[in-house]
Amino acid sequence: MPSELRANAGDFEDQFLDLLSSKREVSSDVNDVVAEILADVKRRGDQALFDYTKRFDRLELTVDSMRVSAIEVEEAVASCDPESIKALELAAHRITDYHARQKPENLQYTDEVGVQLGHRWTAVQAAGLYVPGGLASYPSSVLMNALPAKVAGVERLVMVVPSPDGVLNPLVLAAASIAGVDEIYRIGGAQAVGALAYGTDTINPVDIIVGPGNAYVAAAKKQVFGTVGIDMIAGPSEILIIADGKNDPRWIAADLLAQAEHDTAAQSILITDDVNFAEAVKQAVDIHLQALSRSEIAGKSWQDHGAIILVDDLEESIALTDRIAPEHLEIAVDEPDAMASKIRNAGAMFLGRYTAEVIGDYVAGPNHVLPTARSARFSSGLSVLDFMKRTSLISCDAQSLKAIGPAAVTLAKEEGLTAHALSVSLRLED
Amino acid sequence: MPSELRANAGDFEDQFLDLLSSKREVSSDVNDVVAEILADVKRRGDQALFDYTKRFDRLELTVDSMRVSAIEVEEAVASCDPESIKALELAAHRITDYHARQKPENLQYTDEVGVQLGHRWTAVQAAGLYVPGGLASYPSSVLMNALPAKVAGVERLVMVVPSPDGVLNPLVLAAASIAGVDEIYRIGGAQAVGALAYGTDTINPVDIIVGPGNAYVAAAKKQVFGTVGIDMIAGPSEILIIADGKNDPRWIAADLLAQAEHDTAAQSILITDDVNFAEAVKQAVDIHLQALSRSEIAGKSWQDHGAIILVDDLEESIALTDRIAPEHLEIAVDEPDAMASKIRNAGAMFLGRYTAEVIGDYVAGPNHVLPTARSARFSSGLSVLDFMKRTSLISCDAQSLKAIGPAAVTLAKEEGLTAHALSVSLRLED
Repeated sequence: MPSELRANAGDFEDQFLDLLSSKREVSSDVNDVVAEILADVKRRGDQALFDYTKRFDRLELTVDSMRVSAIEVEEAVASCDPESIKALELAAHRITDYHARQKPENLQYTDEVGVQLGHRWTAVQAAGLYVPGGLASYPSSVLMNALPAKVAGVERLVMVVPSPDGVLNPLVLAAASIAGVDEIYRIGGAQAVGALAYGTDTINPVDIIVGPGNAYVAAAKKQVFGTVGIDMIAGPSEILIIADGKNDPRWIAADLLAQAEHDTAAQSILITDDVNFAEAVKQAVDIHLQALSRSEIAGKSWQDHGAIILVDDLEESIALTDRIAPEHLEIAVDEPDAMASKIRNAGAMFLGRYTAEVIGDYVAGPNHVLPTARSARFSSGLSVLDFMKRTSLISCDAQSLKAIGPAAVTLAKEEGLTAHALSVSLRLED
Repeated sequence: MPSELRANAGDFEDQFLDLLSSKREVSSDVNDVVAEILADVKRRGDQALFDYTKRFDRLELTVDSMRVSAIEVEEAVASCDPESIKALELAAHRITDYHARQKPENLQYTDEVGVQLGHRWTAVQAAGLYVPGGLASYPSSVLMNALPAKVAGVERLVMVVPSPDGVLNPLVLAAASIAGVDEIYRIGGAQAVGALAYGTDTINPVDIIVGPGNAYVAAAKKQVFGTVGIDMIAGPSEILIIADGKNDPRWIAADLLAQAEHDTAAQSILITDDVNFAEAVKQAVDIHLQALSRSEIAGKSWQDHGAIILVDDLEESIALTDRIAPEHLEIAVDEPDAMASKIRNAGAMFLGRYTAEVIGDYVAGPNHVLPTARSARFSSGLSVLDFMKRTSLISCDAQSLKAIGPAAVTLAKEEGLTAHALSVSLRLED
């Protein structure tokens, strides 16, 4: 059974803190293995990739066959259901349109003493995209990770995807093609992360690596961070739904299960002010579970980590939401905007009864890579900004330096940095 | 002697790669000690802080004396040289003005099928600012780390600063006061990072921790990352100066040494097309070194890590700069803007002969916390954005869901996620 909390119960605060601090992930320590693999890839390059791929994916690679050819991609696209291709194209169009609006503006101005100041945004030159193989190989994730890089203006977009026993998901290749990925290599695991970070004879290194992966991939990304940039390490998925009693319980139940079916460690939480509605949702969950292909996973997630919080007044859910800081927040009430404007911490908000969170997973436009594990308190979803960096620009002439230089000399002396002071005072003497 | 490279030499590429990959930092593995301290602070809270502070700073603290009082801050401000206070105020004014222009805009629009989309930026609620004690206690860093948080709208700004033997730098307290820091605690090291991340009875936890520190502080920040956000872990400082022969060699020499005096691991590189100028700069460095208070540090940095690269044509410096991706870049030529526009990777650019990098350390306005160790390839200096996060907003009604929902159902089915498909299809039946 999911846990049930009543906000007016005497022990609510303790129960809520338990919910907040519950560990859902089993962290396996693979750091040493990963460090070895990375060092080996750094040292032996392509040959290390071939060896690990033979061992882990049961696949013999060569310099030529490691890269997925343009013909293979074309054939994969041709083998896909045209309706699925059309759905991907719609998604790609909408994701591109939304992300194009995130492009930051450059800044340039001359201040009151004549100093020219500004900043300039530029794209990273090359980005690597990790795509898991097997069951977790999602075409939608390819679009969500690749398109922000494209919109940012990244010149070289490299995808790695393991192909256990040589099998690749054709729709993943189709998504890569639609997103404009430049190079695809059939490698995975820590070794693929190493290849992207350090480069090999065949694969040029990139500047940033994004995309989801298993514990080995996550550990490898952490270890190469610094040599390259990385995106967030995503935890298990989460949804918080704030719903009054006027919703169709079957809809809300499906939304809770859509999150739960990702992973037994996923978490679905409902906050409502209607005890009968809560009961109806629970029953609808049980009915849905009988018909779902991933009912075992979804059922276990709901049982182990699901929660229903009953509040007297839905206004109470505002403060609770900010403490939970959910990855996904559905607000299924009559005036969702009013409530949304009072909430500070959430990766993405889905407003109104018709806005299923799933719409955001695929076709709404915003990114589905979002902060998990309460990190929406301080971080944001993947965006164009993650593939760009900002350079500050400063320009003084003799006169404007005279206006601000003496203060710099004063502070440099206070900090005991006499070369700093000298660098400015020599120019002031001029 | 600094290394000297000639871009037209046969072994230049090898020498340049050596320069790029040279390790300047001695990485000490303090992870285990730090993990213990953090766990202890999590468990014992204030008492652990008192114990570590007694051990490391030789200072007995209590719940009351741990916090620096408003009166202490006032007294510190009163004890400072008024000229230094005025210099800090000028710097604070200029930093605030520049960073206010970084504030991102919210987004809200309705697309062609009627889906309402957007994003909203909000400030993190509480930020922690680490300030080193002793020699590396820089008032300018307090401004540079605190003011972007203030501009972002962070409601609670908490500073920790160790006070070995009870000594605090009055100008650091003055800078905190000018920047509007809300709480100051006289604690440091990994224990202070733990207190900010987990909270104690006396100190409420924060959402993000920024600011420089020693190896223990850096390791602690890495370990609490996830529980809270952190800024970059900064490496030793660097400057690259592109200069033609028309510069005053004494100015450029002072700029090289201003970077070198930070740390024996700092790096100063000059690229020039004029061999006589290069020689004059070297001589000026040696002359300056005789008069500098930190000549031992600066001299060692210049000897061990300094470099002069001679090119036939300054245009060659563009590609070299992008590979070095320096933290600071001075472009001391006649038309610096033209060259700057061709360079992609640099934390900050200082344009023209009068723009000493030092101006940016103190009073220009842009942040002096900048990406080191080639990370300007993929990351940016500290900004208002680091203290804010973005929430995506999505809103469909029945009609707009009909336009995009079917594609979501198609993709969900392709990905084998039937609860996802159900969540949308139930609403499409309506």
